[in-house]
Amino acid sequence: MASTSSLTLSQALVARAISHHHGSNSSSSSTLSLPTFSGLKSSPAKPSTRLLHRSRRSAGASRPVRASVAEPATVGKTTDTSLVEKSVNTIRFLAIDAVEKANSGHPGLPMGCAPMGHILYDEIMRYNPKNPYWFNRDRFVLSAGHGCMLQYALLHLAGYDSVQEDDLKNFRQWGSRTPGHPEHFETPGVEVTTGPLGQGIANAVGLALAEKHLAARFNKPDSEIVDHYTYVILGDGCQMEGISNEASSLAAHWGLGKLIAFYDDNHISIDGDTEIAFTESVDTRFEGLGWHVIWVKNGNTGYDEIRAAIQEAKAVKDKPTLIKVTTTIGYGSPNKANSYSVHGSALGAKEVDATRKNLAWPFEPFHVPEDVKKHWSRHVPKGSALEAEWNAKFAAYEKKYKEEAAELKSIITGELPAGWEKALPTYTPESPADATRNLSQQCLNALAKVLPGFLGGSADLASSNMTLLKMFGDFQKGTPEERNLRFGVREHGMGAICNGIVLHSPGLIPYNATFFVFTDYMRAAIRISALGEAGVIYVMTHDSIGLGEDGPTHQPIEHLASFRAMPNILMLRPADGNETAGAYKVAVKNRKRPSILALSRQKLPHLAGTSVEGVEKGGYIVSDNSSGNKPDVILVGTGSELEIAYKAGEELRKEGKAVRVVSFISWELFDEQSDAYKESVLPAAVTARVSIEAGSTFGWEKIVGSKGKAIGIDRFGASAPAGRIYKEFGLTVEAVIAAAKEVS
Amino acid sequence: MASTSSLTLSQALVARAISHHHGSNSSSSSTLSLPTFSGLKSSPAKPSTRLLHRSRRSAGASRPVRASVAEPATVGKTTDTSLVEKSVNTIRFLAIDAVEKANSGHPGLPMGCAPMGHILYDEIMRYNPKNPYWFNRDRFVLSAGHGCMLQYALLHLAGYDSVQEDDLKNFRQWGSRTPGHPEHFETPGVEVTTGPLGQGIANAVGLALAEKHLAARFNKPDSEIVDHYTYVILGDGCQMEGISNEASSLAAHWGLGKLIAFYDDNHISIDGDTEIAFTESVDTRFEGLGWHVIWVKNGNTGYDEIRAAIQEAKAVKDKPTLIKVTTTIGYGSPNKANSYSVHGSALGAKEVDATRKNLAWPFEPFHVPEDVKKHWSRHVPKGSALEAEWNAKFAAYEKKYKEEAAELKSIITGELPAGWEKALPTYTPESPADATRNLSQQCLNALAKVLPGFLGGSADLASSNMTLLKMFGDFQKGTPEERNLRFGVREHGMGAICNGIVLHSPGLIPYNATFFVFTDYMRAAIRISALGEAGVIYVMTHDSIGLGEDGPTHQPIEHLASFRAMPNILMLRPADGNETAGAYKVAVKNRKRPSILALSRQKLPHLAGTSVEGVEKGGYIVSDNSSGNKPDVILVGTGSELEIAYKAGEELRKEGKAVRVVSFISWELFDEQSDAYKESVLPAAVTARVSIEAGSTFGWEKIVGSKGKAIGIDRFGASAPAGRIYKEFGLTVEAVIAAAKEVS
Repeated sequence: MASTSSLTLSQALVARAISHHHGSNSSSSSTLSLPTFSGLKSSPAKPSTRLLHRSRRSAGASRPVRASVAEPATVGKTTDTSLVEKSVNTIRFLAIDAVEKANSGHPGLPMGCAPMGHILYDEIMRYNPKNPYWFNRDRFVLSAGHGCMLQYALLHLAGYDSVQEDDLKNFRQWGSRTPGHPEHFETPGVEVTTGPLGQGIANAVGLALAEKHLAARFNKPDSEIVDHYTYVILGDGCQMEGISNEASSLAAHWGLGKLIAFYDDNHISIDGDTEIAFTESVDTRFEGLGWHVIWVKNGNTGYDEIRAAIQEAKAVKDKPTLIKVTTTIGYGSPNKANSYSVHGSALGAKEVDATRKNLAWPFEPFHVPEDVKKHWSRHVPKGSALEAEWNAKFAAYEKKYKEEAAELKSIITGELPAGWEKALPTYTPESPADATRNLSQQCLNALAKVLPGFLGGSADLASSNMTLLKMFGDFQKGTPEERNLRFGVREHGMGAICNGIVLHSPGLIPYNATFFVFTDYMRAAIRISALGEAGVIYVMTHDSIGLGEDGPTHQPIEHLASFRAMPNILMLRPADGNETAGAYKVAVKNRKRPSILALSRQKLPHLAGTSVEGVEKGGYIVSDNSSGNKPDVILVGTGSELEIAYKAGEELRKEGKAVRVVSFISWELFDEQSDAYKESVLPAAVTARVSIEAGSTFGWEKIVGSKGKAIGIDRFGASAPAGRIYKEFGLTVEAVIAAAKEVS
Repeated sequence: MASTSSLTLSQALVARAISHHHGSNSSSSSTLSLPTFSGLKSSPAKPSTRLLHRSRRSAGASRPVRASVAEPATVGKTTDTSLVEKSVNTIRFLAIDAVEKANSGHPGLPMGCAPMGHILYDEIMRYNPKNPYWFNRDRFVLSAGHGCMLQYALLHLAGYDSVQEDDLKNFRQWGSRTPGHPEHFETPGVEVTTGPLGQGIANAVGLALAEKHLAARFNKPDSEIVDHYTYVILGDGCQMEGISNEASSLAAHWGLGKLIAFYDDNHISIDGDTEIAFTESVDTRFEGLGWHVIWVKNGNTGYDEIRAAIQEAKAVKDKPTLIKVTTTIGYGSPNKANSYSVHGSALGAKEVDATRKNLAWPFEPFHVPEDVKKHWSRHVPKGSALEAEWNAKFAAYEKKYKEEAAELKSIITGELPAGWEKALPTYTPESPADATRNLSQQCLNALAKVLPGFLGGSADLASSNMTLLKMFGDFQKGTPEERNLRFGVREHGMGAICNGIVLHSPGLIPYNATFFVFTDYMRAAIRISALGEAGVIYVMTHDSIGLGEDGPTHQPIEHLASFRAMPNILMLRPADGNETAGAYKVAVKNRKRPSILALSRQKLPHLAGTSVEGVEKGGYIVSDNSSGNKPDVILVGTGSELEIAYKAGEELRKEGKAVRVVSFISWELFDEQSDAYKESVLPAAVTARVSIEAGSTFGWEKIVGSKGKAIGIDRFGASAPAGRIYKEFGLTVEAVIAAAKEVS
């Protein structure tokens, strides 16, 4: 075959170029497991243009990026090219037809990426269509989520029950399993929820991290019980997003060698040619980040190039690999290919016809040719066999390594060890006053002892967030069995990486941390946790003006309200030790709902009356001297202001008032209680209510009603010692007492 | 001088290396205005280690980065080294002493960056201390905002009134002008508000963009009336944040040659050595982005190296320059330098003493030696002279180029042309139904005709956000006079760049755009707009489930509430043409408060009763058949749901009800109205109220009260045609009618 021999030639030339550069120490090699791509620099001799190419639009230093080289010895081609092409065109037309029927969607990416998609799902990836949750499957993430018809077509061909012909026909319709972007909670076989650009590659970093961590902890010299790859396709849009750079920097730092990313280099984004806003050299940037970089010049029909690139990527064990695959968006469409018009709209009947003619596709919409169907049909038995083989392996492992197997099983199934919550510390009013961030650290360390899948870290604030697990070291390239993650100052990447970790295995429970105000940097990832039912634990310290001198850029004001408004997330603001422990109990239990813990920098006393059980109800009575559920006034506080409400209650009682003090740690949990319980805490007849919280009063009318008063902060903060700001902002016992008298 | 001669030698060697690499076409050159740094590659000959260095911890391809080379001919050293060192130590000790007195703050960066700070403010930058707002001043941004004592010390030495000795002594105290991070609204001389990492470099890109744009529009062959540099210092933390990569990619794409960034490469972040989380090659990444990169190896005492790097940077006109300055954090502290302990805490009395001894600093706290004071005293007269010179230049310009001068003056002063608002379109109920995103485009184009400082663009969604200005081309490297900004898919960078633009000159009015849900990607920048009184206009389309098929990842739910809770920002959700025009009127007028316009993808009718005047009040009556301010029921809607409320009102009136329909386009503006006005719209006695909005009901209790009903969406959205989702979610005329009957 012509392509093979020219590729063999290329291979030899590459080896020569390398040996020239490396000098006499490096002998000409015929294998392709090159140490790192970075060894390849331009040599004084004019390079073969077949080997060394310049990025089409490299604005920066234009450095040569080597095209991938086929490796005939290791590539097992399972079928002839014409059938591959037929399969690839099947994928293209399933995407075209589904978008056309919905008259909505993104045909361009699936048409361009069908070849790499085909090779991944048909030749490379190990999975079991009949059990999309098989633990040791290869993971695939479509970071460019708008191209979801690519993934739906592949899942359909591979035999997943979740995407049948009717599902393709119901693309983007109410109640379908094929929504407009990949949603793992709707479509088994989809690993993570993508669409908001850049997040998928970060999710993939989390998945690959999880694999590396579990492999390091559980693999034995005689049994690689954890062993899979993570593949991801990302586009120009993903590359432009800052989050992808954050996560990619960490992926290289951590040496995630089993992460293989395909960059769909199609030069088109919604506004047109990427020339108008994206002229950097992505290759050079990724080399700077520490990735192995390969360029597949012909992603449209260069099947062998793609195959070779994957083999090369697999051979590089210590670095993630970026395979830049140059494709034509909307490949096959005679009039719309290579233009933004094919990105996000149906082709239209006329162009669909023209594309059918152009690609010589005589079939009806949604038709899968018999030979293609037959070819793909092997994946169901093959997948079952793979899983059965692994199950047998695990059974053997279990016999030999009982303890490890039990731990791993708990991680795989998500079954928490019985009585885990007993590990959480308890406190009394006599316990020394402490910041809830410190109490949080006690909880984190207690949980790490009993929860095998508990791991996490901070965005360069471990010593401020108090998130280090003392019995573990750092998860690093050389110590992946450890559990302290060091994210650097990369909040957005951190959140999305944790989404990947938690979705890798039900028993992995990642937490992450920064200052509460910097949830603004990672809000898009937090929202995906909430939407994607990913029980990440967000440990957010410095939760109010109580942080003091750092000032308004660091003081959250609107953040509590902003998360209370977000669906499917628990916003918890504990007031002391028992409430912090309760918050962690809730957070660990809620595996399908993320939790945010807002924690104080400043010391707080342990209050009589707080409890884990109370926390689980969201709002509860902390102290009360009324009878018949008829207090004169109800004082409501959260977090560090519960103490203020508590003290105000004591003062008012001295004056003869019947005062109820309520902790409102989680609005969401309170909302879920019975009407009777709610009435027992906040009786409708008692309209004299005062709330105090060092944050926006927005939303508090719901609790205090139109006759009550909400004390809070409806301006930005200030730089000064915390006590002074509290006083200047009127968050004081005196203010609560005055308000209570005003409303009652 | 030894350093000079060795640098001259270096220069010659560099020239030789270049000529070798470039081959015979490139002749040996003795000048340093090299075309681009990218020309420098490793040559086969072993490079001189004096010239070619490897990054200490380069994980990726380790590429040689050339150290800066002094240029004796152009560097005007204004003083002898001992006085420079004394001035540098003054800066160090002002920072040490202020942090010590406050017992709070970050001494490490000022101690390490004092040399580059000194050179910038004493030798390089053009500014007028007595008029911090002089238009043509060089801009300086401390992206690593925690090191603000560096800037305060420099402003103090330079003679700014805003930072006097007492201000230094009141560092981080209530009411002081020296808050814990730089806040431009507190401290004249500070250009932008920083602290949240990574945003400052993006602000600087905006400042440099503004300069390039205005220079292209207003400079004449005989008069460079706009001509300044933008300098920025960023640290490891800034480099890790994704936003800095986004903005830096754009800076190179746009060819912002007058942007010069100092990367304080000190290897330390809060959690310790950057080795634990940040091992990429920043140099290589920036070369990939298209920057000119220089490495100053000795940032602690290498004054000539720093000077030479700046000269070299200035000589590179077509690219921004990153000067990597390797420094020691906390330089001078014998026991804490080069450790995280000096990053964010006071040194402590003992270590302050030790540092005084170590740096031979015999002075009292806050003392500025007389010779240093005298040396710096020239900046007040020099600054006045610079401004006077420019004023004279402008006077001449004004005579010759009357029209341009008037436009530029309007941009400099922020005075809007009289009657500008008359340009906004008006609509009647007979105008064709249209999406508010399209009506928005009509407003944008109308405003661009009358507002000389109006410019903006979208994060790769111009054709969906409808934000193109039709009479202008794209702002690009070669066409910087144009006004359509192409941000690519970089929302966070976009927001922070616009903060830089709007803070460059009061008359610059930038808008930016993406889908409303993706405000999550840029929320940290939006918050800085609000805190920093930066009147950026956020054009956010696809504002609800009304976008349909893209599904829940793209459908905002909690976003309206989340911004209503944020201080100092206007959240506007117009319902039709007149409301869209009104929203723009409000947004343009509010130069110290950012505005977010939430706009529909779907068509909406123009309703009778909507008005610009109504919009300005935030909430107002659109239709009413009641009398005596006693309607049976009040129906409240916003944006696309106002139509539903409106129609429900019509139906209910047919049944004999007295119904008031209220548009609630901006809660913030309504809050600012008189009690009498509020009572005229929402009379306290009328508790029968129903609201409808396609978003979270969180917060609506404030409007509808405990007896009213809020119809909204308290779950995530769904992928389906918009009409179907509205129906399934119960956002219908029928639902409003039913609720109205229930509550009245």
